[in-house]
Amino acid sequence: MYDIEKIRADFPILTREVNGKPLVYLDNGASAQKPRVVIDAMTRMYEHDYSNVHRGLHTLSNIATEKYESVRGIVARFLHVADEEQIVFTTGSTEGINLVSYAWGAPNLEPGDEIILSVMEHHANIVPWHFLRERQGVKLVWVEPEADGSLPPEKVLEAITPRTKLIAITHMSNVLGTRVDVKPIAQAARTRGIATLVDGSQAAVHGPVDVDDLGCDFYVITGHKLYGPSGSGALFIRRDRMLEMRPFLGGGDMIDTVTRNTVIYNTPPMKFEAGTPGIVQQIGMGVALDYLMGIGMENIAEHERDLRDYTAEKLNGLNWLNQHGTAADKGAIFSLTLNGPAHPHDISTILDKRGVAVRAGQHCTGPLMEWLGVTATARASFGMYNTREEADALISALELCHDLLG
Amino acid sequence: MYDIEKIRADFPILTREVNGKPLVYLDNGASAQKPRVVIDAMTRMYEHDYSNVHRGLHTLSNIATEKYESVRGIVARFLHVADEEQIVFTTGSTEGINLVSYAWGAPNLEPGDEIILSVMEHHANIVPWHFLRERQGVKLVWVEPEADGSLPPEKVLEAITPRTKLIAITHMSNVLGTRVDVKPIAQAARTRGIATLVDGSQAAVHGPVDVDDLGCDFYVITGHKLYGPSGSGALFIRRDRMLEMRPFLGGGDMIDTVTRNTVIYNTPPMKFEAGTPGIVQQIGMGVALDYLMGIGMENIAEHERDLRDYTAEKLNGLNWLNQHGTAADKGAIFSLTLNGPAHPHDISTILDKRGVAVRAGQHCTGPLMEWLGVTATARASFGMYNTREEADALISALELCHDLLG
Repeated sequence: MYDIEKIRADFPILTREVNGKPLVYLDNGASAQKPRVVIDAMTRMYEHDYSNVHRGLHTLSNIATEKYESVRGIVARFLHVADEEQIVFTTGSTEGINLVSYAWGAPNLEPGDEIILSVMEHHANIVPWHFLRERQGVKLVWVEPEADGSLPPEKVLEAITPRTKLIAITHMSNVLGTRVDVKPIAQAARTRGIATLVDGSQAAVHGPVDVDDLGCDFYVITGHKLYGPSGSGALFIRRDRMLEMRPFLGGGDMIDTVTRNTVIYNTPPMKFEAGTPGIVQQIGMGVALDYLMGIGMENIAEHERDLRDYTAEKLNGLNWLNQHGTAADKGAIFSLTLNGPAHPHDISTILDKRGVAVRAGQHCTGPLMEWLGVTATARASFGMYNTREEADALISALELCHDLLG
Repeated sequence: MYDIEKIRADFPILTREVNGKPLVYLDNGASAQKPRVVIDAMTRMYEHDYSNVHRGLHTLSNIATEKYESVRGIVARFLHVADEEQIVFTTGSTEGINLVSYAWGAPNLEPGDEIILSVMEHHANIVPWHFLRERQGVKLVWVEPEADGSLPPEKVLEAITPRTKLIAITHMSNVLGTRVDVKPIAQAARTRGIATLVDGSQAAVHGPVDVDDLGCDFYVITGHKLYGPSGSGALFIRRDRMLEMRPFLGGGDMIDTVTRNTVIYNTPPMKFEAGTPGIVQQIGMGVALDYLMGIGMENIAEHERDLRDYTAEKLNGLNWLNQHGTAADKGAIFSLTLNGPAHPHDISTILDKRGVAVRAGQHCTGPLMEWLGVTATARASFGMYNTREEADALISALELCHDLLG
């Protein structure tokens, strides 16, 4: 039984008001709120157990190191990765994807080599590949979704040519909510020696992910969307791909030996982690993932499917509103525009007066906005703590928008 | 008046015990503890005001953005930089120096170009330059300190050749405590068009820094050593150097426009900041810097000079102990080895039994260890909250080491 009131009580911020109304936080696609256990774990660290990690021998350093390193196993369990040495800590998806671009892409791709991207990608999964285009002549090949936002795996596979070296694709669109069936893509790519990077920034928040089963080479998650702290994250790298990679950031921890004329790198995953890491944030992310696993990702997914269906039905009744992305198994993410000249920014501003927090803009998806033929959308993105009543508040506030702007 | 008891009361962890003894935290060179105001500011953010920044229009997003962006001005005041647009947020010194290596070094340096480094550099200010050596044939030129650990600026300037493109140098050695007089170096370099990067990871913690006066091109600080959160930091980049740099990490925020075939980057400093940043950590770092400025960096420096002189005199009385680094104006950082076969790790372990936290190892300074002719040292590094009584506890615990190991 999904006890939504108990879950809501775990999140301190949900009791606050905005503009005199109870906060209705529907900006989870941008970043999620944090449960008490995560906040408390970080406070406890700073108040009682803080030290740098790895290089000390004193008690606090050992405590901090043990707590910090235990997160690697937590991430592995969360992503269903049997070998936790394939988990690299990052500061979030942006750093994770850049790490792959710099450490795997730059040394392995040649002019004319191709990277397949979907038009739905977030800038974090576009700009690092534009770097390779600008700097070494790699070609970006784009795949468009169907009109409803769905993306059949075949469409991705059809874009493969003999020059394809990487498929970098989202597991769930942050704008349309589309889930991409990445397993057949990863498996077909693997048989042809093509690498696959899956951007799990959204998907991992809203349902179970089994990376070993998917069979991709790289999978990124970001802690702040997973109800964890800002500046936390992780990157799965399949062991055989690690061998093809040079280091990314240079500094402490990622080296074995440094002399004036030589440097010998540490073994993975440490090879890809440089300097004092985000110790307390990573520990906080571990607590967040444990919290999610305690509730059960399938239970969260079921709760959000209910919210999605409930909200979609209400939205379908508003004939002055456009919903972008209506694929059958999409996540509870709704990108909206009004008929007429009203700008999505106006929607966000008016909703905010009712305490309803949604984001308006490009959502870091320039190519998708162009494909949709809009400059921006207002996006309501649900999370594990949202309710049908909050969906009602959204609808009611949208009706106010229509009255004021329509 | 420097009210040490009031300051100590600001740091919750200082009341804890380790192995039944009051904690004597002398591992500040690795990372510093956090005052209550920093911890509370982060808790408050997560409990009450958290949201992603920059791209929202709702109340929480505006609150978070305002708090986050205000830190840029705080860092600028802390570093005495008049133009806060020259401050780039990072996750710490390691990312900051790598940013310079990738975004300025890689596109501007050619095979045979030279980078001058001191032998005292931390791996964070070595390995990113080794990357340029390995990947594009840049030559590293090393400067050694005097026997006491001091480094006259002339020695650095004498290493300049027509091929010198960058001088990357620490402002204070994390092992020897040596302060480097970087102003004449930066100014001489500037007249010859040579770039200068100053690693302020240690120096900025222990006294006032005036970057505009120093005249360097790049200056890095790391929040976790500055009594701020893990995963926070900043990089000063002189405006004219920004124009020579390509972006480093790609993703949200650092772009103006992204299409399938083109990308237009944002203007600095945003050009160098990609994706959801370490929102809450950076806000915490701002509170830490405000706290430090409230007490006064010159007052902190004076307090630590007293601790340095008091401790040095006591250590000088121990003729079975070697002190590495005895430059006249050094910081309160003591790197120690025992005569005989005892390993510094043993010192750290025994001191820990007395509640005294010091670090033993290479301290991420392979070339310096080689120059010193040791494999490791035990390092006691003082901070703003340490006391003469804690120095006494260190000395007493060292005497125990001598009894047990000598």
